[in-house]
Amino acid sequence: MKVQPRLYKGTRDFLPEQMIKRNYVISIIRGIFEKYGFEPLETPTIEMWDTLSGKYGEEGDRLTYRFTDRGDREVGLRYDLTVPFSRVMAMYPSLPKPFKRYQIQPVWRADKPQKGRFREFYQCDVDVVGSKSIIADAEVVAVIAEVLRTLNFRKFTIRVNSRKVLAGIVEASGAGADKEMDIYRSIDKLDKIGPEGVAKELENRGVSSAASGIILDLLKVEGSNKERLSIATQALEGSETGMEGIREVTELFSYLEKYGVGDDEYRFDLTLARGLDYYTGIICETVVEEPKIGSITGGGRYDNLIGMFSKNSIPATGGSFGLERIITVMDELDMFPPNLKTSTEVLVTVFNPDSLPYSIQVASELRAAGIKADLYTEKAKLNKQFKFANEKQIPFVIVAGPDEAERNEVALKKMASGDQETISLSQISARINALLER
Amino acid sequence: MKVQPRLYKGTRDFLPEQMIKRNYVISIIRGIFEKYGFEPLETPTIEMWDTLSGKYGEEGDRLTYRFTDRGDREVGLRYDLTVPFSRVMAMYPSLPKPFKRYQIQPVWRADKPQKGRFREFYQCDVDVVGSKSIIADAEVVAVIAEVLRTLNFRKFTIRVNSRKVLAGIVEASGAGADKEMDIYRSIDKLDKIGPEGVAKELENRGVSSAASGIILDLLKVEGSNKERLSIATQALEGSETGMEGIREVTELFSYLEKYGVGDDEYRFDLTLARGLDYYTGIICETVVEEPKIGSITGGGRYDNLIGMFSKNSIPATGGSFGLERIITVMDELDMFPPNLKTSTEVLVTVFNPDSLPYSIQVASELRAAGIKADLYTEKAKLNKQFKFANEKQIPFVIVAGPDEAERNEVALKKMASGDQETISLSQISARINALLER
Repeated sequence: MKVQPRLYKGTRDFLPEQMIKRNYVISIIRGIFEKYGFEPLETPTIEMWDTLSGKYGEEGDRLTYRFTDRGDREVGLRYDLTVPFSRVMAMYPSLPKPFKRYQIQPVWRADKPQKGRFREFYQCDVDVVGSKSIIADAEVVAVIAEVLRTLNFRKFTIRVNSRKVLAGIVEASGAGADKEMDIYRSIDKLDKIGPEGVAKELENRGVSSAASGIILDLLKVEGSNKERLSIATQALEGSETGMEGIREVTELFSYLEKYGVGDDEYRFDLTLARGLDYYTGIICETVVEEPKIGSITGGGRYDNLIGMFSKNSIPATGGSFGLERIITVMDELDMFPPNLKTSTEVLVTVFNPDSLPYSIQVASELRAAGIKADLYTEKAKLNKQFKFANEKQIPFVIVAGPDEAERNEVALKKMASGDQETISLSQISARINALLER
Repeated sequence: MKVQPRLYKGTRDFLPEQMIKRNYVISIIRGIFEKYGFEPLETPTIEMWDTLSGKYGEEGDRLTYRFTDRGDREVGLRYDLTVPFSRVMAMYPSLPKPFKRYQIQPVWRADKPQKGRFREFYQCDVDVVGSKSIIADAEVVAVIAEVLRTLNFRKFTIRVNSRKVLAGIVEASGAGADKEMDIYRSIDKLDKIGPEGVAKELENRGVSSAASGIILDLLKVEGSNKERLSIATQALEGSETGMEGIREVTELFSYLEKYGVGDDEYRFDLTLARGLDYYTGIICETVVEEPKIGSITGGGRYDNLIGMFSKNSIPATGGSFGLERIITVMDELDMFPPNLKTSTEVLVTVFNPDSLPYSIQVASELRAAGIKADLYTEKAKLNKQFKFANEKQIPFVIVAGPDEAERNEVALKKMASGDQETISLSQISARINALLER
């Protein structure tokens, strides 16, 4: 039965050229994660529904892929990496702490697909579990800054705030503590809907206009990080939680300086709230000026989440890179290095059926030396084989015909310049490695 | 609400020690795939149901995770990598051919979980599309042999057969061609249920006992590859398809010699059938003598599968590594190199809160030099920090207290020997890189 080949809406195939770019970014991210002492971890795609439900807020519950398996178990697909990881930390209490892990896996959201918004996309997370220390938060922010710098992001801002500071603002405004999550969700939309939009939302959520006014005034604070901190300190003096938040942010900033994170790379931003329920302390997310795309990293402290799976509450903090958005920005700003078109370095052509054994020998020689060598498998004129290499942008082509075979040589063509040279078989791998500058 | 933390049956968490082993195997597999000119590709987890249905046979349909999304679309989770890849090849007809891709992704099967059988597991596939040439099949077998050799498998056998040879056997037996798939599925169970079991299954499937007898006699062929080929040639002389199969297997073996695949590494095996519907030509799978675990690779030619999604039929051949079984074998036979316990190379301790800035400086220095350095974030005695490094098997520990800070030095302890030395901060990275032999 013939089937129309098509993708499920909101999902994508990654062809080699895209995969090579993705792998380039992931390999930089993974390398820096490991340099900072984070270790790899993976969790399953399918989780029991009660593991996922009620962890992300109302919207999260709605957008989680959920189904019943053949054994009538209610299950869901991984919605983020933090909640399954928290389950892991509760299940293996003997893991030595502080426990630092990274995790690079896809997640699924039953969202309406739009430009740049997918139903399956990758997250790259680092987390420190078992530490209340603000140094742990600083390590996460330092990782974020180093990844973005290494990927060649020139202008990024890590917005930093604290749920404790926000709780202080709610307290100072006189709105009830029961309104906190509602207020955070409205504040989180400030960039999208503006102060009037937030004011209207707060009104709809039953926040008094006096409280709403105080909150919106505080969100307007401007100036340097020091100036913002000092204004917030004055405003929140009456709130114990608020002051604790201010102290933690101040401590974080003092560490960031030691880590070499520039004062222009982060900003104390009272308007940052983050949408998810589970944050409890410092929160951060990264924005870029161009292109307009929303945040490319997010994260924060979640000291109570693991406790939802465990007798003991275990503090934790972390950050998450949105791979798709990072790649979109890098594509739009042309930030990828050249030569990411193909992983293949050499095409070994086959002159005619009789010379196939020699071509196999040449390809085997190259492969044994670690060179990525394709062998052309079809009967075709050399012309066509060169066209193939050209189309795929393979940088080198080798001709190994009967004449070359007789002299134990090959002809090597550099596709970029068109230059050709004849080299003995015993020298070919060294020559190509030299041309590839390694 | 407190939730009992638990896994969905048949799925696993991979903690760092397991992940490091998995990444070790995957990185060897990926490196060899690329050396042979295969390029990376990924497809989505969720596919439209009609993409998956009817491709794997009856059992496959039954074991595919299937559900309806919120938009009432019938979808399923990736069951293998070959069918989604075939959809890709039909959707992007302009991809230059022969098209060689590799794919390393998890797949899902709603199977009964057992020891060594999971509902989520990784496959690592290579495929060549757009080539009828047996060289393409040879490249796949050469990759399989090189991966297993590089992973240090000493005794493995790549069983090789051809669906055309099997069709010849069915033809020679006088059983109808409509019984082919039934017969293949029974033959495929020979190892599990023995000749009597197969005979009974064939009887149940309506194959005459005369035909069944001829088939079972042919499956008993023994001897060297050459001897087996010659006996099969005699038996199948009357079948055009069978003879074509024999010629292709003979051609494959002649190439394997050129690729340096040893005659003891593969075996012409008439009892190999493979369970999936879509194979059309050469098929192969790899078995190891110890431990008893079933096949660790599988694959073959599937010249008609892509045509199920496309106007044009496009030939294809490939192979698949079962990551979980490979890791199980390597674990049981103790084949992993030592020092795969942690990715972290150095723990930088914090002597006291005042010396934290110097410890951050030391960690930053190491990280800038590419060394994987963890920084201890908690207030704790040095003793406890050393115990932590010991438990995690981190090979080096650095003490950077006030005395060391004053002289711009650090104390470096090699955990294996207990040796300790004092080194200037400017030399520490070079020293550790030297100790790590790089």
